[in-house]
Amino acid sequence: MSTAALGGSGRGRPRLEQPRRPGRTAREEILDAAAELFTNHGYGSTSTRRIADAVGVRQASLYHHFATKDDILDALLTGTVDEPLQLAADLLGEAGPAAPRLHALVVADAMQLCGGRWNLGALYLLPELRTDRFEPFRRRRAELRELYRRLSAAVIAECDGPADAADLPFRLVESVINSRSDDGVAPSGQPWVIGAGALRVLGFTGENAALVECTAARLGVQAPAR
Amino acid sequence: MSTAALGGSGRGRPRLEQPRRPGRTAREEILDAAAELFTNHGYGSTSTRRIADAVGVRQASLYHHFATKDDILDALLTGTVDEPLQLAADLLGEAGPAAPRLHALVVADAMQLCGGRWNLGALYLLPELRTDRFEPFRRRRAELRELYRRLSAAVIAECDGPADAADLPFRLVESVINSRSDDGVAPSGQPWVIGAGALRVLGFTGENAALVECTAARLGVQAPAR
Repeated sequence: MSTAALGGSGRGRPRLEQPRRPGRTAREEILDAAAELFTNHGYGSTSTRRIADAVGVRQASLYHHFATKDDILDALLTGTVDEPLQLAADLLGEAGPAAPRLHALVVADAMQLCGGRWNLGALYLLPELRTDRFEPFRRRRAELRELYRRLSAAVIAECDGPADAADLPFRLVESVINSRSDDGVAPSGQPWVIGAGALRVLGFTGENAALVECTAARLGVQAPAR
Repeated sequence: MSTAALGGSGRGRPRLEQPRRPGRTAREEILDAAAELFTNHGYGSTSTRRIADAVGVRQASLYHHFATKDDILDALLTGTVDEPLQLAADLLGEAGPAAPRLHALVVADAMQLCGGRWNLGALYLLPELRTDRFEPFRRRRAELRELYRRLSAAVIAECDGPADAADLPFRLVESVINSRSDDGVAPSGQPWVIGAGALRVLGFTGENAALVECTAARLGVQAPAR
């Protein structure tokens, strides 16, 4: 859709008068439009021109915020790992049993992957991400995976679980991406199902209800109905 | 690469004299080339012309085998669900405890997803798959997911596990796609790790070694070193 199609009066910058997308700033609107196009039409098939049209700005305005399409993708992807990375680092620094800490990380991360307007995790498998441009993002995501692995290894040690399972909680969390893609929506209780599953897969046989209560309090969210 | 670049002598059909790809037939060579391009360069960015060039045939020859690029994608994707669907149906029809049957399905399916030359599962998340053209494929994959769910539900019933976990084994199997994408290769023991994890996540606490032995014999594969 062009700016003209927005019913612009010719006074310029109709975007500021008729914001059509979530986002307080032009940058956020560009990210939202790009996320929609990348996840619904494909990264390779989306041009920066098409993104600009979807926001209702000129391409020149878009380039003011992002020099390249890859920069937009990088900003979107980085937004999916920054918070879990911070949380994982905080949780690893805490004392006490590992099981409730891993549970909190798994539920919080699955919630953010379920919660965004667009299924951004589906972009993790793009071949474009293997280029040098995305090495910083790949490194951050690998770091997150490594923090999951360390917390998972601590749980395995606590409950004498199988040593080779330490990568599975990270993978279970990512599975919400596939569920969203297959079902169109992410079932709202899925992060809690995955939280419980991520512990069981490591050999944990303790009470799930205590973990749920603890994680709900920590994250400031509602525990699922029993 | 054009046919000329193959060092063709001008006698025509150099492909038949210098097959450069796995596959006994032109159709299989086309599928192999397309799989490489789709997974390494992106589906949207790959033209049928580029596929024909990669095989060393004319576009007209390619169209003799596949009318559209979507038809090639459909053939590749269908190839990843046909065998597990057949196996799942066979296993569901068998009598006896569900745990060894689910274990065999999980290990076999993870092996085939790990074993192909290209990481075809990475294409499951393409937005193109949401179009009507791929409805038959989506239905077959949904059918496979449903068979996993039924076998998983039977395991849950056997071991008094958590009822809401029945979708997780299917998701754990798919996680080999992410591992391959992240690591470049699929670790060879991963199907067995996932086989054990898929049972534990359903609440199964029996002996893993017995399942491994039974599955190795059934599939005619080597059990992993203990």
